[in-house]
Amino acid sequence: MTTLIDGNVHAAALRARTKARAEAFAAHHGRQPRLDVVIVGDHPASRAYVRTKTRMAHETAIDGRLIELPETVTAEALLAEIARLNADPTVDGILVQLPLPGHLDGQMMIGAIHPDKDVDGFHPLNVGKLYTATKIDPERMLIPCTPLGSLMMLHDTLGPKGLAGKAAVVVGRSNIVGKPMAQLLLANDCTVTTAHSRTGDLPAVCREADILVAAVGRPEMVRGDWIKPGAVVIDVGINRVPTEDGKGRIVGDVATAEAMGRAAHITPVPGGVGKMTVACLLHNTVVAAQARAELV
Amino acid sequence: MTTLIDGNVHAAALRARTKARAEAFAAHHGRQPRLDVVIVGDHPASRAYVRTKTRMAHETAIDGRLIELPETVTAEALLAEIARLNADPTVDGILVQLPLPGHLDGQMMIGAIHPDKDVDGFHPLNVGKLYTATKIDPERMLIPCTPLGSLMMLHDTLGPKGLAGKAAVVVGRSNIVGKPMAQLLLANDCTVTTAHSRTGDLPAVCREADILVAAVGRPEMVRGDWIKPGAVVIDVGINRVPTEDGKGRIVGDVATAEAMGRAAHITPVPGGVGKMTVACLLHNTVVAAQARAELV
Repeated sequence: MTTLIDGNVHAAALRARTKARAEAFAAHHGRQPRLDVVIVGDHPASRAYVRTKTRMAHETAIDGRLIELPETVTAEALLAEIARLNADPTVDGILVQLPLPGHLDGQMMIGAIHPDKDVDGFHPLNVGKLYTATKIDPERMLIPCTPLGSLMMLHDTLGPKGLAGKAAVVVGRSNIVGKPMAQLLLANDCTVTTAHSRTGDLPAVCREADILVAAVGRPEMVRGDWIKPGAVVIDVGINRVPTEDGKGRIVGDVATAEAMGRAAHITPVPGGVGKMTVACLLHNTVVAAQARAELV
Repeated sequence: MTTLIDGNVHAAALRARTKARAEAFAAHHGRQPRLDVVIVGDHPASRAYVRTKTRMAHETAIDGRLIELPETVTAEALLAEIARLNADPTVDGILVQLPLPGHLDGQMMIGAIHPDKDVDGFHPLNVGKLYTATKIDPERMLIPCTPLGSLMMLHDTLGPKGLAGKAAVVVGRSNIVGKPMAQLLLANDCTVTTAHSRTGDLPAVCREADILVAAVGRPEMVRGDWIKPGAVVIDVGINRVPTEDGKGRIVGDVATAEAMGRAAHITPVPGGVGKMTVACLLHNTVVAAQARAELV
């Protein structure tokens, strides 16, 4: 028996808690927590995604604003926009949607965001704090949203102490998911292996995992027989694959149908990790707002 | 046949390269690169270690200075000393020797050092840069000395591309060694497992390692039969154990005698990683001096 970890349920619960905190913040400070999302160009998937972020913000009592810049914006103009948002005391969170057009350096733009407003948790200072922390505290730190959401679902599934001593395998080593995910699992006392495209026998490595996190962006790469019976599987992939009717459909990095009956718990795609990513962004916005208010 | 990886030889070669660079820096800028080491209190082992650092600096054409503060120094006074060194344009590298007395917060003091002068590579901003870098460049980044020295010896032993695809196991998850070591191995395309005190079957995990790094600080914990035949073993431990004559002796985290005949290559203790740690500190001082000179 495999149970599905329902991202919609977990995300709705987190958003409800976040909304209550946002409302308390507004009552105390006379303004809502505010998240400004900067998007450059008109990549359709990114546009849809940032609109979801601002809509979800509004539903969570957060003042979510969208700043749309043309594909041709210069690095200087984007840096000036980030500087303006850094200086605006009513802005708590700044998110620059990635990927950026080729003439703009994503890492430079992330480094330009004030670390206290870096709700994606991608600024090197926040990355360094995450890696050196003796205790991971999502109420005091800005932790990348997808790994944070995945960790919260693991805590809910296995219990807060249920990760200790487990063998965890993270497939993928991106700065956005794989690396911070490995650090969160390590801080929760898992024995953590990071695997990737250069790993020799990837199926054999995955079969050792009590907790398997797939974050590679390759449709259904992880097959059913790569999964240790009884494992918990977190599928971070969101891949569009073609269908005969031309509409396409979304699949994860795991062949979910094959995993059913082997995994003890698995996140579906869609309806799994993706929902938690946006909910964690709103959580981080409130954390940033509260931390900034304490500093004043 | 097991060959010993001779830390003295590797460290002497690195110091020779560093000395040539330090002399070229002095010829060009009219002053030597400068490393200031701050030590608080009179812990005998720490005192001996910082004296080695400044003596080695002098032998490498680096102006190494020792700043000795009493055990009772206040946090404010230590922070003021760090601020003075941050502001002094002739100081390229600042090292605050750890551990500090209990009334001082080590992480706070590390965070107070200017990141450009943080030759230990422990400041959160430098940690974050290490974790997000697309390419690890010891000529442009300040990387923690023990993992950097270990990586250099691995490159010399296996060839610069010889780490790719290898299964690496790091035992220990400290901020000083284990975590940055894992990141360096990952960036060199190893499949990396971090194990620790909560790992279930540690011997079995170690037996999977083509590259085994022991960094736990427990004398001879890693036994011979934990080592995969043909593995490369990096022994980071420096542990003093009692002897009948009362003098004690230094052993590593690996039972070296048992490892002989199983490992293909192993670093001895003493005479292994420890020598490279100090050499890398001097390397980082010259890297910091050159980067600061470019900024002017």
